[in-house]
Amino acid sequence: MELKDKCGLFGVYNSPTASKDIYLGLYAQQHRGQESAGMVVCSEDGSFNVHKGIGLVTNVFNESTIEKLKGGFGIGHVRYSTSGDTDIKNIQPIVVSYRNNVLGLAHNGNLINALRLREELEDKGSIFTTTSDTEVMLHKIVKSQKVKPVDKIVEGLYGVEGAFSILLLFEMGIAAVRDPWGFRPLFFGKRDDSFYFASETCAFDLLGVNDYREVEPGEGYYISEKRIEKFRLLSFARRCLCIFELIYFSRPDSTYKGSSIHNYRLKLGMQLYKDQKAEADMVISVPDSSNSAALGYSLASGIPFNIVMIRSHYTGRTFIAPYQSIRDFKVKKKFNIIKDVVKDKRVVVVDDSIVRGTTAKKIVKLIRESGAKEIHLRIASPMIRYPCYFGIDMPDFNELFVNKIPSDKFNGYIGADSIGYLKLESLQSIFGNKFCKACFDGQYPMEIKNIEDTLIKKTKQGR
Amino acid sequence: MELKDKCGLFGVYNSPTASKDIYLGLYAQQHRGQESAGMVVCSEDGSFNVHKGIGLVTNVFNESTIEKLKGGFGIGHVRYSTSGDTDIKNIQPIVVSYRNNVLGLAHNGNLINALRLREELEDKGSIFTTTSDTEVMLHKIVKSQKVKPVDKIVEGLYGVEGAFSILLLFEMGIAAVRDPWGFRPLFFGKRDDSFYFASETCAFDLLGVNDYREVEPGEGYYISEKRIEKFRLLSFARRCLCIFELIYFSRPDSTYKGSSIHNYRLKLGMQLYKDQKAEADMVISVPDSSNSAALGYSLASGIPFNIVMIRSHYTGRTFIAPYQSIRDFKVKKKFNIIKDVVKDKRVVVVDDSIVRGTTAKKIVKLIRESGAKEIHLRIASPMIRYPCYFGIDMPDFNELFVNKIPSDKFNGYIGADSIGYLKLESLQSIFGNKFCKACFDGQYPMEIKNIEDTLIKKTKQGR
Amino acid sequence: MELKDKCGLFGVYNSPTASKDIYLGLYAQQHRGQESAGMVVCSEDGSFNVHKGIGLVTNVFNESTIEKLKGGFGIGHVRYSTSGDTDIKNIQPIVVSYRNNVLGLAHNGNLINALRLREELEDKGSIFTTTSDTEVMLHKIVKSQKVKPVDKIVEGLYGVEGAFSILLLFEMGIAAVRDPWGFRPLFFGKRDDSFYFASETCAFDLLGVNDYREVEPGEGYYISEKRIEKFRLLSFARRCLCIFELIYFSRPDSTYKGSSIHNYRLKLGMQLYKDQKAEADMVISVPDSSNSAALGYSLASGIPFNIVMIRSHYTGRTFIAPYQSIRDFKVKKKFNIIKDVVKDKRVVVVDDSIVRGTTAKKIVKLIRESGAKEIHLRIASPMIRYPCYFGIDMPDFNELFVNKIPSDKFNGYIGADSIGYLKLESLQSIFGNKFCKACFDGQYPMEIKNIEDTLIKKTKQGR
Amino acid sequence: MELKDKCGLFGVYNSPTASKDIYLGLYAQQHRGQESAGMVVCSEDGSFNVHKGIGLVTNVFNESTIEKLKGGFGIGHVRYSTSGDTDIKNIQPIVVSYRNNVLGLAHNGNLINALRLREELEDKGSIFTTTSDTEVMLHKIVKSQKVKPVDKIVEGLYGVEGAFSILLLFEMGIAAVRDPWGFRPLFFGKRDDSFYFASETCAFDLLGVNDYREVEPGEGYYISEKRIEKFRLLSFARRCLCIFELIYFSRPDSTYKGSSIHNYRLKLGMQLYKDQKAEADMVISVPDSSNSAALGYSLASGIPFNIVMIRSHYTGRTFIAPYQSIRDFKVKKKFNIIKDVVKDKRVVVVDDSIVRGTTAKKIVKLIRESGAKEIHLRIASPMIRYPCYFGIDMPDFNELFVNKIPSDKFNGYIGADSIGYLKLESLQSIFGNKFCKACFDGQYPMEIKNIEDTLIKKTKQGR
Repeated sequence: MELKDKCGLFGVYNSPTASKDIYLGLYAQQHRGQESAGMVVCSEDGSFNVHKGIGLVTNVFNESTIEKLKGGFGIGHVRYSTSGDTDIKNIQPIVVSYRNNVLGLAHNGNLINALRLREELEDKGSIFTTTSDTEVMLHKIVKSQKVKPVDKIVEGLYGVEGAFSILLLFEMGIAAVRDPWGFRPLFFGKRDDSFYFASETCAFDLLGVNDYREVEPGEGYYISEKRIEKFRLLSFARRCLCIFELIYFSRPDSTYKGSSIHNYRLKLGMQLYKDQKAEADMVISVPDSSNSAALGYSLASGIPFNIVMIRSHYTGRTFIAPYQSIRDFKVKKKFNIIKDVVKDKRVVVVDDSIVRGTTAKKIVKLIRESGAKEIHLRIASPMIRYPCYFGIDMPDFNELFVNKIPSDKFNGYIGADSIGYLKLESLQSIFGNKFCKACFDGQYPMEIKNIEDTLIKKTKQGR
Repeated sequence: MELKDKCGLFGVYNSPTASKDIYLGLYAQQHRGQESAGMVVCSEDGSFNVHKGIGLVTNVFNESTIEKLKGGFGIGHVRYSTSGDTDIKNIQPIVVSYRNNVLGLAHNGNLINALRLREELEDKGSIFTTTSDTEVMLHKIVKSQKVKPVDKIVEGLYGVEGAFSILLLFEMGIAAVRDPWGFRPLFFGKRDDSFYFASETCAFDLLGVNDYREVEPGEGYYISEKRIEKFRLLSFARRCLCIFELIYFSRPDSTYKGSSIHNYRLKLGMQLYKDQKAEADMVISVPDSSNSAALGYSLASGIPFNIVMIRSHYTGRTFIAPYQSIRDFKVKKKFNIIKDVVKDKRVVVVDDSIVRGTTAKKIVKLIRESGAKEIHLRIASPMIRYPCYFGIDMPDFNELFVNKIPSDKFNGYIGADSIGYLKLESLQSIFGNKFCKACFDGQYPMEIKNIEDTLIKKTKQGR
Repeated sequence: MELKDKCGLFGVYNSPTASKDIYLGLYAQQHRGQESAGMVVCSEDGSFNVHKGIGLVTNVFNESTIEKLKGGFGIGHVRYSTSGDTDIKNIQPIVVSYRNNVLGLAHNGNLINALRLREELEDKGSIFTTTSDTEVMLHKIVKSQKVKPVDKIVEGLYGVEGAFSILLLFEMGIAAVRDPWGFRPLFFGKRDDSFYFASETCAFDLLGVNDYREVEPGEGYYISEKRIEKFRLLSFARRCLCIFELIYFSRPDSTYKGSSIHNYRLKLGMQLYKDQKAEADMVISVPDSSNSAALGYSLASGIPFNIVMIRSHYTGRTFIAPYQSIRDFKVKKKFNIIKDVVKDKRVVVVDDSIVRGTTAKKIVKLIRESGAKEIHLRIASPMIRYPCYFGIDMPDFNELFVNKIPSDKFNGYIGADSIGYLKLESLQSIFGNKFCKACFDGQYPMEIKNIEDTLIKKTKQGR
Repeated sequence: MELKDKCGLFGVYNSPTASKDIYLGLYAQQHRGQESAGMVVCSEDGSFNVHKGIGLVTNVFNESTIEKLKGGFGIGHVRYSTSGDTDIKNIQPIVVSYRNNVLGLAHNGNLINALRLREELEDKGSIFTTTSDTEVMLHKIVKSQKVKPVDKIVEGLYGVEGAFSILLLFEMGIAAVRDPWGFRPLFFGKRDDSFYFASETCAFDLLGVNDYREVEPGEGYYISEKRIEKFRLLSFARRCLCIFELIYFSRPDSTYKGSSIHNYRLKLGMQLYKDQKAEADMVISVPDSSNSAALGYSLASGIPFNIVMIRSHYTGRTFIAPYQSIRDFKVKKKFNIIKDVVKDKRVVVVDDSIVRGTTAKKIVKLIRESGAKEIHLRIASPMIRYPCYFGIDMPDFNELFVNKIPSDKFNGYIGADSIGYLKLESLQSIFGNKFCKACFDGQYPMEIKNIEDTLIKKTKQGR
């Protein structure tokens, strides 16, 4: 799988260890973004303490930075830059001043009318200091003439289209809002008198927050000293969680609608066998993303599950450019093959998805070179046929594997003896209609009027 | 002297070594600000390359950062934070995006109506990401609907009151503007086909730029590929250079109106003897700021100049808090006394100015403890009676030495046998009327309508 | 499993990309030591270029440090400090000068007579700059009056007892030596005209070195411009590879005697079922160390394998001390449970070993709190009854689980419904006699005359 | 002056703020070495806490590192590397272990038989981990079979020839020793119940240590819980303080034999006028090293002292290589000329010494280009005719200015209208015989048997 998830959010209200809580909440969601991390905490005197940096949560923060982030409530963010733009300006949360107030914002998702909104704001004289679509929401909320935080949010977010799960830090409290489609996940938890928000429930597990529920699409919470206000955005809400949260992004130990993500993937794998049978000596996964699906395939088929690919967990940023004497370095540094297990064997390789096909091709090659007799690639999701405009870093239409390679050349291109995808109708029957599956079926939950608008054009602000 | 200067500017247009030039230009002006340094260079494709950091020029930049700052023109800044706020967001130059354009700005000075302007902008929905008055100018220039850079600057700066010498970086060229009063210095130089701007001429000396002139008060330059445009701001200009540039801020080897700063100070010292005679065995300076004036006093009086105070040049940021066993640590770590020179001697100590009196008191004590028989403190400028609103970091009215201590208690407070100031009329006769001397005579060059406006109130954006 | 492996070695001779090769070789063996990394390369003029640091390989080295490590041959080391002493002085390889020569040494293992050897050397006036036993070998080799490298090594290592796989860097070549018992692994590889040494074969896989063999116990190689010299240490060799290399330390994709480590573990798991049957709904592993054994147990028993424990791969150095509101933080930050999989189920948990029992206890508790009905802990190795003196960081005799807890209280202490170990005779039958299994059976391969000698007492050199 | 001083020492015994004291003592002596700094403090349990680093004292240490250096006594060092070798291994103090003891050593000076001593030690099997001559002393002291620290020192230093002022840290106390010739300075001070050692008295001033005396040549002190032991080295002592301590190295506010260094230099300047008269309009100095001498010349001649050269105090490590458009960059970045002061004037430039002549040449050129009519260079010391083997970084015999340029070409080479040196007999009459003036008269205080021995040949240990 070559898709890239984008961001993880974590917020806390009324905790004596707020900055530590956020640190741990981000740490547990590190898989949602390894490029940068940041946190803003509101101190007792109403001033905001910020710390951000490039790198993993454990690199960005240390004991003394956490110590300095005093205050009882705050928000944090881990980010995977879809643009590869590691500009320190873009690290979230973003904090701004307006009329002697301060506001912090952390965002997971992607707006589809960001450019148009930004141009409208610029025409009225707004100035932007980052290159992210997140700043657009910040401007719109701040520009609202309403006084109360909830009113400002509702007015400010009116007309904002696309995917946004956001956390906001005000001087008096924190807010959490999810777009009316609910593209990106967001959860609300409670432990004793402390309140928490997280992108995934695995963050709650680490903190011992056992009492939690989903923030519904189009729903918002504002928690201040006085009380918890629950509110709704003005648009009509239709649940459309990105199906890739279940297929790939979320940790298997996170939950959705009362079931673990692992369980959804197990089902996908079991159905995959029904859709795409294969005769083989073993089923293997591409660790760790397709472990659950591969196990499901094995259970349904009775073909034994085995371990063949070993993943390095220290990949980090290996700067060393591949040199000539090492071919396929990028895949090799991530995966190594246990050769004596596959030698002369027929292998079903289960992967979660194929985007461009380049990684799948290299993985199949690695296994082939290790002596496998037959390789049957099975994909635990349907064919990705359409690009995503809601935050998933996907290539253009023509670069998608199934669009660039004729179906009769799939096997040849990848080098597999057979390739089988989960059927679209199977996905439908497992998950129902309350998901965005546009990358599979092209049924975007809202009209994409102008593709150009979905992207903040790379501005001229360099590093 | 306890005053703090604020900033140094350096800009270059059309140099194959633009970033190196700026580096050296800032390095030569390091005395104007040791807290942070930054530079923006416009690359060939119109994108801006930025590098900023906390510390000295030699710490912030290294060979590889300079190498990456590619481009033929750019601007730089060194800053002394008057607020002690070392927030990385406030490091200049500031760079923003607007309508797909970029703009960089570096500022020396202080606006007296910044808060009011900021509130006007915020009422129209502007958002601020720094706590500096500089961002106000940026917003106003960007908000101008004019198209040509010169027109935008002139319209944008209309209504901006106070001290500002600024450099602007556009995608097509650089601009330099000085406020109509000319509070802060700014010079324009030329070497071959390259053009330079600097706060002080000593920066030109290092780069071998021998052909230079002053940017006149209210005057601006815009240099682009096409040509050099010279323009004027709309307000009526009246020359009011801050007299402290000559008394204290500028390096003695910089020049103003064809004469070295050293020479002005020499004259102040000579006149000081005429105003405030003393009988003594030697004249000494508080190095390095009053070296020239002390030499002048010695020349006029015939009393031999001698070296008694030795200044440490590695002060940097010595974090170690003074502990009980070392009294007056702060002064001691900066100055040590050559005791056998002053023992049993009558000493004239020449200093450039007295603000709060606390440092003068400690210096006199140090010399007294070293065995001096008589100490006659002579100040090479008149009494500072009024606060400054134009960028000099001075205390409030009531904390100024001459306001808080009755004149008959001056000697007792400071511990000197006599204290003598340069007469106000002497300053007048040496320098004439084309300077701001408001701190001495209260004659502010423009009405200070609302003192509150002169300061951006400390906003709630913490670090 | 709470044992800690100690070090990884990698050496190269005659490669145009020597420092890159070592970087990758260490990267692939990162699991053998995450505390520090270092490398020494011999440049063309015979001088040694060294770079070492605390942290992961990817943190210690970057493009520019690798670039500076010029030279065609060198050695590297990753280290897990058994003493928790992160002193930079102790980072290997260690480099010393003697009689205008230089020598570098990297060591995996632990000497059992280090203290006595060190005292002998100190009595003759030797001075030590590190607190490691490695320096003892260096002194002894250097003190040899022999001239040829091979002779120096053989003479110098005579009388050195315990575990040592070492790489040596001379000005003319590199050497690799393994102690006569072969406690720690060491392999010799070849690709084109370049020669390699590594602790594990997975390092060769990354570099595409397919032609390799084991360095035999008591065997040494010295490679210089002239030729490859193979030599033997003077002591009688008896093969005693540490059995824990197969059970726990080595990566599953590394090989030993032609079989993958994964395969050995699969066999252990299958035999474990035969030795310790259980009735259950699923078999789960403690990832990643017992994945293979758990799979084996599942295959032998027919009980389905499932995924329940999810391991965080970003653990690094999380400094945040557990606070009161989060119990069992240390285990929780590493593992999370997929609750709906185990709820009301009977579970077989396969782990590789139990040392103190504290981790096992916490893991069982985590699973129990997630709702498991029955928990049957199965250990894929026999009871650890005896401490190790050859480099494995184990507690004293009395702190070992089976020694401190009476066997009838095992279940109660751990909180499991049943606990079953692999039988000692099963281990014997799978692996035969050519391993050190002293921690299980107390049959140390050599007499431990004085336990004190096995450890360099913590000297008084602090950080 | 282009000579380079070498090191500064500071030690303390029995202070509750030992590490802070050492920090301040090194800070005050920063001018004696800007390349690296280090400190070792002995904690209550007898273990040594070490912190060292490359850079200024204020860069190497911070509040938290000082905090960690717990203990009541310790030693520190600042170093100017004469070899330009910034290897972190060579940063002092050096700490070693031997027979379960620890020893720290900090050294100012240079041995003339270091290489021979090192070879003797290596022949007996010693191993060296640094490339400095300091390690030789450490080995010799440690190898002494004596038990008491004083006895070990006396025996160990027997046969060590050359310049050494050293501080030693034992587990029970600290020692200070000065070689029998007293080449390098060393002082012993007392404040209340705390004892101090420093290379210069200015360090005592900062700490308020007013009660101090010189450590005599050949004398040593060992201070432990029991008492202060004073002892003597075995060689016959003859006082030979390096005359350059008075001429150039020491800070003017330090004292020697009851007189400030400034006063000695004042006398040199006054005598210089008598030896080398000149007619001129002003006397100027090359700041800051010749300020005192220039003032003396002015006082004796009646020619007014003026300020013309302005020195940048932020030089640090300016990496930027001079580029073509800026000639004489190296001197320019350090000095700028106040042009209107010298224009059409006859100037006496007083400098402290000439070594190679290259800097003097550039300075004269700068002043000439600024419009001076006549330039008379006066040197406040005699001609340097002989190289130094005792720690001053001087070029070989043939590169010394007076040896490479015929005397009738002095003016032409330097570009001055006249050049005049202090006469050797004048130096003699001012200072008497108790100094090493070998660089002027070739009368080395001890026979230099083998010049090769004076230098540790660059060993093959790279970075």
